[in-house]
Amino acid sequence: MGMHPCTSIDPQWPTPGQALARLRGAPPLVQCLTNTVVQQFTANVLLALGASPAMDDTEGEAGVFASIATGVLVNLGTPHAEEAAAMREAIAAANAAGTHWVLDPVAIGALPVRTSLAHEFREARPTVVRGNASEVAALAGAGAGGRGTDTTDSPEAVLADAARLARQTGGAVAISGPADLITDGASVWRVAGGSEWLTRVTGGGCALGSVVAALAGALMPDDAWPAGVPHGTRAAWAATVAHALYSVAAERAAAASRGPGSFAVAFLDELSLLDPDDPALAHGERVSVAAVEGVEAGTGADAAEAVDAAGSPAPRDLPEHPLPHHGRVFSPTNNEQELR
Amino acid sequence: MGMHPCTSIDPQWPTPGQALARLRGAPPLVQCLTNTVVQQFTANVLLALGASPAMDDTEGEAGVFASIATGVLVNLGTPHAEEAAAMREAIAAANAAGTHWVLDPVAIGALPVRTSLAHEFREARPTVVRGNASEVAALAGAGAGGRGTDTTDSPEAVLADAARLARQTGGAVAISGPADLITDGASVWRVAGGSEWLTRVTGGGCALGSVVAALAGALMPDDAWPAGVPHGTRAAWAATVAHALYSVAAERAAAASRGPGSFAVAFLDELSLLDPDDPALAHGERVSVAAVEGVEAGTGADAAEAVDAAGSPAPRDLPEHPLPHHGRVFSPTNNEQELR
Amino acid sequence: MGMHPCTSIDPQWPTPGQALARLRGAPPLVQCLTNTVVQQFTANVLLALGASPAMDDTEGEAGVFASIATGVLVNLGTPHAEEAAAMREAIAAANAAGTHWVLDPVAIGALPVRTSLAHEFREARPTVVRGNASEVAALAGAGAGGRGTDTTDSPEAVLADAARLARQTGGAVAISGPADLITDGASVWRVAGGSEWLTRVTGGGCALGSVVAALAGALMPDDAWPAGVPHGTRAAWAATVAHALYSVAAERAAAASRGPGSFAVAFLDELSLLDPDDPALAHGERVSVAAVEGVEAGTGADAAEAVDAAGSPAPRDLPEHPLPHHGRVFSPTNNEQELR
Repeated sequence: MGMHPCTSIDPQWPTPGQALARLRGAPPLVQCLTNTVVQQFTANVLLALGASPAMDDTEGEAGVFASIATGVLVNLGTPHAEEAAAMREAIAAANAAGTHWVLDPVAIGALPVRTSLAHEFREARPTVVRGNASEVAALAGAGAGGRGTDTTDSPEAVLADAARLARQTGGAVAISGPADLITDGASVWRVAGGSEWLTRVTGGGCALGSVVAALAGALMPDDAWPAGVPHGTRAAWAATVAHALYSVAAERAAAASRGPGSFAVAFLDELSLLDPDDPALAHGERVSVAAVEGVEAGTGADAAEAVDAAGSPAPRDLPEHPLPHHGRVFSPTNNEQELR
Repeated sequence: MGMHPCTSIDPQWPTPGQALARLRGAPPLVQCLTNTVVQQFTANVLLALGASPAMDDTEGEAGVFASIATGVLVNLGTPHAEEAAAMREAIAAANAAGTHWVLDPVAIGALPVRTSLAHEFREARPTVVRGNASEVAALAGAGAGGRGTDTTDSPEAVLADAARLARQTGGAVAISGPADLITDGASVWRVAGGSEWLTRVTGGGCALGSVVAALAGALMPDDAWPAGVPHGTRAAWAATVAHALYSVAAERAAAASRGPGSFAVAFLDELSLLDPDDPALAHGERVSVAAVEGVEAGTGADAAEAVDAAGSPAPRDLPEHPLPHHGRVFSPTNNEQELR
Repeated sequence: MGMHPCTSIDPQWPTPGQALARLRGAPPLVQCLTNTVVQQFTANVLLALGASPAMDDTEGEAGVFASIATGVLVNLGTPHAEEAAAMREAIAAANAAGTHWVLDPVAIGALPVRTSLAHEFREARPTVVRGNASEVAALAGAGAGGRGTDTTDSPEAVLADAARLARQTGGAVAISGPADLITDGASVWRVAGGSEWLTRVTGGGCALGSVVAALAGALMPDDAWPAGVPHGTRAAWAATVAHALYSVAAERAAAASRGPGSFAVAFLDELSLLDPDDPALAHGERVSVAAVEGVEAGTGADAAEAVDAAGSPAPRDLPEHPLPHHGRVFSPTNNEQELR
């Protein structure tokens, strides 16, 4: 099955408002294996939006939980030994059960533990990879052999890498930045707006990963879609909707804030106040779409090989032996702000 | 010594306001071994109320701390390996020193690590067990042989289970819900009010466990009581007072909030603003009491056997070998919201 | 090189406002190995001020990070086994790379794991030690042989201990209290003001340690100073500036708060609103200085031996074998509030 870039947003797809209504009507149970810095904020973001967080990252039960969760987030911000073991359990169980999951490769590149884990987990085909430009480039680059951790600042500059990564996983890749870009390897959706204050609150990026997992859980099933929309494209749209909801709430919160303290409080309030019928959550208000440059309809062989007739990629098992640490030469990154 | 159900609130018992004054006059040192998601909120709730939190959950010193703490909370939300070891230390030391402690069996039932720990710790006779209806049923049911993890929604529906559990531990059991129920096995106290917003803030339930531990520490000693009130009844009243204080502060916070962000902030403010002389903290304002149906005066043999003449249960040692995982068949629970 | 007490604030030294401008112009990357209770608040404080937090405390990469960080905080509030290992890595790498680091010996004295770690880490010569009076006395006292954990309440009462400790490390020691005292062993800077609300918000003290690390990173380099100011004196002034910025923001937040919830929010806002040109951040507004009693110009032999011609102490390696637990007799401390 080839890839066909979208050049406009299909009016039959769920709008951000419709997606929100769907989520609140059947709150997804979102398991977050995330860093200890942002667990509280992440859980509060999910609760404010209307989802049900579950932060179970205990070895010996993380897999049990992933098999019944609606969505799973794997965030590498503090990859302690037990946390890493629980992540392996959760990913294996999620793939076995068909639970959609999101990988956030926080600050990978020079830091060996998380970088190794990110490349190991990439092989298990996350539904969505979410990160900033440097993180996405680092995750995509090593797979292509050696891009390393060169710092790249803008989502636009790493879009080709992101698209290649999406074709490899068969899912979607979301890049946060001044405007966010989300790709399935063929098309790229652009979400404008938001607020710089999100970069001044710890977890502003990490909690977005949990919202992507919530929307993936709520929005991937067939009954939300017209016929024929493949897995990766659904994943990209679910991630796009997550970014759009986040962006609207952040803008409104910023308008009423004196600083990052009051912003974080108002942001939770605004997430809870989002109204599915709000015109800002209609099609065409915040999201645009285009073809990824250089991708032709019908290409995308990396993904084609792995995607079955229903448009779902066959999840790969985790490798028996985790990849060794890459021992790469250190190269400073500019994403300190993102080291949550 | 048999159990005599209360049918009215004894005016000689400390009112919620008097209990608060007592707590602030000699701030209890409350050690919390709790999940990483809610540590910050829990500590802030205790500080706002006027207690002194201490979050020491390090193996090798958790027991040292429990021996000097005024109250201890054991919350199973993220039962990592070192956390579980520290809990064993703390419980053993608390029982040896006579420190009152609270068990919150978060989301037990299908999740094997925490379920096993909860049943192990139950044998050590917590002063108070606090949870939602499903958690209390799961903790009570397995002890009685096989209730398993059937989901039960309302505190009322699991009251008989809770009362049996209270008679087994010799302490109290508190069930959170739309109205909270607290029982010592013979009587049931009902706390109305509160705010649904507490279910939209992570830690809304978990932090209540720490407040129960604070009140148990402040309110169990003899000098707070008329003669003859047994251990389990004191424990139930301490827990009831904790729920009442929480409920009043939550209602007031909700009245001034736009959403869960501003609610959490206002809730801390309102806890700190609670005034011992407030009429809402007098007897009869928020709490009612009745006999547990089916319990006759003079029955309660489970507890009678274990309670000494002074009305204090003999703390049991932890079993040498923790119970094995129960390996029970998974049954989905409805308490996702409570997976903090 | 001897020690010369300052008796007035040198107008050539950077004012708090100038230091803040310098920090915001080149945001220091501050690695925090801190307790799980306060990670979120600590990161938010650094972000609000204008620094870049990084909470990397994973064994196997904490040292990699410390070698590129601008400043490192080591806070012993929850010294779990992996955390302690990561701290050893980070301290060794920081010393090898010349990264300035801060030690916060939270609640040491009776608690064996953290007390042992604190004494081990003291030997590695932290740039700044920050704590309350009891913690500083406990850290200084054991080195001098047996002061133990006698509780001492006021910073003034432990100033002589603090000054001796500073001469031993060659750095600075900062003591929090109603008024804060900071010493390099010869002089003592006093920072007035602040707000008691900081003691009612968990992390109020711990996050200050991260701000000290940020200022140490921003302010230690030569180009911030006139010629001839030694290492320990720079460290003391960097810590003093951190306390002054914190104090101004706290006062302003307190003026607009109803309780600890709204105070914590307003405090983050006020940190972000601090203006380098604010008259409150000029010299002489909030800080005074005096000689430490009993210290003569030219004395301070402890430090003299360890400080090279450039005024920098030679960082010592960590001992091969960590000190054994001290097994000291327990003596209750009055710093429960500080057990964050």
